[in-house]
Amino acid sequence: MTDNISLLDYNERKKEKLMRYLDISEIKTFESRKRARLINCLTGHKSANLVGTKNTQGATNLSIVSSAVHIGADPALMGIVFRPDQTPRHTLNNIRATKVCTLNHISEELVINGHQTSARYPENISEFDEAELTPEVLNGFNAPFVKESKLKIALKLVREIDIIENGTHFLLFAIEGVYFPQDILEEDGHLNLYKINTASITGLDGYSSPKKLGRLTYAKPGSFSNWLKE
Amino acid sequence: MTDNISLLDYNERKKEKLMRYLDISEIKTFESRKRARLINCLTGHKSANLVGTKNTQGATNLSIVSSAVHIGADPALMGIVFRPDQTPRHTLNNIRATKVCTLNHISEELVINGHQTSARYPENISEFDEAELTPEVLNGFNAPFVKESKLKIALKLVREIDIIENGTHFLLFAIEGVYFPQDILEEDGHLNLYKINTASITGLDGYSSPKKLGRLTYAKPGSFSNWLKE
Repeated sequence: MTDNISLLDYNERKKEKLMRYLDISEIKTFESRKRARLINCLTGHKSANLVGTKNTQGATNLSIVSSAVHIGADPALMGIVFRPDQTPRHTLNNIRATKVCTLNHISEELVINGHQTSARYPENISEFDEAELTPEVLNGFNAPFVKESKLKIALKLVREIDIIENGTHFLLFAIEGVYFPQDILEEDGHLNLYKINTASITGLDGYSSPKKLGRLTYAKPGSFSNWLKE
Repeated sequence: MTDNISLLDYNERKKEKLMRYLDISEIKTFESRKRARLINCLTGHKSANLVGTKNTQGATNLSIVSSAVHIGADPALMGIVFRPDQTPRHTLNNIRATKVCTLNHISEELVINGHQTSARYPENISEFDEAELTPEVLNGFNAPFVKESKLKIALKLVREIDIIENGTHFLLFAIEGVYFPQDILEEDGHLNLYKINTASITGLDGYSSPKKLGRLTYAKPGSFSNWLKE
């Protein structure tokens, strides 16, 4: 530090020095679990959901996913990435057999139960029992919902897209119907997920409770959007 | 309310009555913007990122996405859904031409700037300028990073998967490198995204600040996981 730079400048430079660049060649040298933790954090905070299925004998299965992604509103579609090498393999087999599944929001209160479904159980064990969650049949849909979940979606398989690069599967689903407490539906169609404490996931094992910043007005050229008064 | 049911039971029943089922046939009757708001909320809280690109003449482009999804750690892959009918069309064209883009976390402080990139600008206008964000060249990578963002990823296009069902495109990317402040990298590979205030998105226009619940120990059959001491 010399007389020519201010303390502010010095601190800025110090901060810049502490920026880290990790090249993929360096990441590849990480031990595999460490690498998985890092890479799983990169997209940011992720959605937290439980996928409910049944096999053709009627045995139920439940698995946690952080990979549900919005595809479109008309037709109403979403996608979910499934890994072949973990518990959801049962889930994947069940979806292939029955062509349906349910997606259930994980609220703050259900995080520990939801996380438990990622343990490796044999196929004859239901993760519902092990996670102390209750399978629920609604409107005769052929996959179990999570009774304790506050937002539940009935999904019908449209098609399966193979990600040959790593053996994962991107499944495209049509939304058949949605269950939620009436008071979270705002007049303009937006859902107030704070009222049902929907959680989020970071990396492999991090959980958060998203707190409201607000909703912004429709973005138009010329001036910045404002926070909607609610 | 009769003498036979307690107030608690009564309130429980009242709550149950207030559960709403929306069938897809009813959702289809919603006005299109209302339907889009609802369907966009269904996956839960979503990741908040800005995609930076350049066209072959070097003009920069920036667009907000809530559809980045983790695909795998080895090889390190992620996917992003792009809609054909909105601003990111320029982004999509640029990625097709240059085969690269950057992904930049939106922190709480950058939410209003980030949202502004969703306004419909002509191709010759840079959303960087309009959103008052600074394009940054790092290590000669052929797509601009967002200087103000605290976590930035260099992505290389692997391939494009067409979602013919609604004309969207699911782009698969290889992670080439990552920039972040050194102190967010935990010893085991997990990234502390709270230190850089990474935000999340709900629906079309809702923004949240995820607050830490904690990290859970690796799930094993037999007993529930515990919160990691940090």
